[in-house]
Amino acid sequence: MVIHGGAGNIYKESLPDSLESIYRQKLEEALIVGYSTLKRGGSGLEAVKATINILEDSPLFNAGKGAVFTNAGTNEMDASVMDGETLKSGAVAGVSHIKNPINAAIEVMLNSPHVLMAGNGAELFAKSRGIEMVDSSYFYTERRHKQLLEEIEKETNRQGLRIAEENMYKFGTVGAVALDKNGNIFAGTSTGGMTNKKFGRIGDSPIIGAGTYANNKTCGISATGHGEYFIRSVVAYDISALMEYKGLSIQEAADKVIHEKLKAMGGEGGVVGLDAKGNIMMTFNSNGMFRGYINKKNKPHVYIFKD
Amino acid sequence: MVIHGGAGNIYKESLPDSLESIYRQKLEEALIVGYSTLKRGGSGLEAVKATINILEDSPLFNAGKGAVFTNAGTNEMDASVMDGETLKSGAVAGVSHIKNPINAAIEVMLNSPHVLMAGNGAELFAKSRGIEMVDSSYFYTERRHKQLLEEIEKETNRQGLRIAEENMYKFGTVGAVALDKNGNIFAGTSTGGMTNKKFGRIGDSPIIGAGTYANNKTCGISATGHGEYFIRSVVAYDISALMEYKGLSIQEAADKVIHEKLKAMGGEGGVVGLDAKGNIMMTFNSNGMFRGYINKKNKPHVYIFKD
Repeated sequence: MVIHGGAGNIYKESLPDSLESIYRQKLEEALIVGYSTLKRGGSGLEAVKATINILEDSPLFNAGKGAVFTNAGTNEMDASVMDGETLKSGAVAGVSHIKNPINAAIEVMLNSPHVLMAGNGAELFAKSRGIEMVDSSYFYTERRHKQLLEEIEKETNRQGLRIAEENMYKFGTVGAVALDKNGNIFAGTSTGGMTNKKFGRIGDSPIIGAGTYANNKTCGISATGHGEYFIRSVVAYDISALMEYKGLSIQEAADKVIHEKLKAMGGEGGVVGLDAKGNIMMTFNSNGMFRGYINKKNKPHVYIFKD
Repeated sequence: MVIHGGAGNIYKESLPDSLESIYRQKLEEALIVGYSTLKRGGSGLEAVKATINILEDSPLFNAGKGAVFTNAGTNEMDASVMDGETLKSGAVAGVSHIKNPINAAIEVMLNSPHVLMAGNGAELFAKSRGIEMVDSSYFYTERRHKQLLEEIEKETNRQGLRIAEENMYKFGTVGAVALDKNGNIFAGTSTGGMTNKKFGRIGDSPIIGAGTYANNKTCGISATGHGEYFIRSVVAYDISALMEYKGLSIQEAADKVIHEKLKAMGGEGGVVGLDAKGNIMMTFNSNGMFRGYINKKNKPHVYIFKD
């Protein structure tokens, strides 16, 4: 099992030791919860759900509880999941009252004829399926709200929108990929989007092929970064296609996509994934990525910076 | 230049000669308008826009004026565009008051830092950029509304949702791909979604890599069909990947994706596209697809059924 908690400009110097330790503990906890699900014979789906729920319920990451605020002061969250055995998938975009968007995405996959649902419609569906809804005040965390106010200040006082947009995408999207005892790969991604985002912007996280992809024949992938570039580059599926069509390993394929193709376009971020043999991949072209893995041979290993 | 006006259960017997003739005329008109733009030295973008606007403004297709109704009696339209030279792209999803959704998608591509915008936010952006907005009554065409009422009757009188869902996806999505004098490929797709759709469902049409893809290195593709399968199969990008990584021709790649991979999953529909040399591809696994092409050597050629 492999996870991420977002990629971006994460420097050792900018992250106090105390906060670093809290991040590491939470990532370890998420890995252990997911892996113990797998050890009990649970499916990849159950493991990914359990792991991502831990990260969504933490205010540390830009997903669920810690989701960033839009320009209107609301939260618009996205999530997606894919089952590598059946290629079934589910996603929600622009939801504001779902406690764990990944659970709604799983519900779309399992109990609707659709793949992607958005906005109020997605919330109506989730509610009708018994998914836990919360008041928007649930997402009101002091740190995120302060971040929004800082962004708005930047936007109004300095050179306007452009600068603000450039600084706007914050790390913190979460994702997990699991390989279960039946050899099935399952991948999921959940995000709160960008601080101060406008205009109902949807990033790569709910887009199958861009932010999430899983196929037992090749790999499972969850991505995090500047979503627009990840959509245009069809990042998650491109890694799978390079494995299937060119015979690359998951690491070679991810290196090509993240360090060559995406970088050439100016796209920043990273991916985590694993292949059908359980080989772990964690690759990013930003300064850091919250990430970690756990498997038969290894206890949880957690990393934040380039190291 | 190559276009489609949707794929589905289109039989010669079910289409009266008079209506068939009207469809053929409109497809020819759209091709001629787009191609004359190219002949005047216009870009692929301008040609795709002009062509799709013709199809959107016609009540014959499930896009723009002819968009189908959701379960709530409203219209939720999606569109996307991609520039094969820069890989820039733009898309809108779930918009209800934009006369030509493809124009809004182009605006997102050219004048926003985003790729995909949805719902009210997308409409606010489009309005702020001077895109033509219309009252929802503009989309009220008798034929489409009757279709919705029939669907609802089916759903309530017969075996409920499942059956209705199965019959719900109607042909009529429109798309165009153009190769301009600079060798740039541009692709666009516009749709009104599914009749009686619920829950803010978003199909493949606004998803880069699924419904639309363009890359000067390989091809431009616009897809139409049962969107959920097209998303899960990352159809448009997969054709490009098979060309780039396996050296297949556009026809071979499309045949593999539409007739083998998609069909094996149970996905119905088709794609049109062209490669950097101008080779035309129009492939579908349904009973029919409104389609046609025009180029240096050929006047407009329009087809509907398998022939």
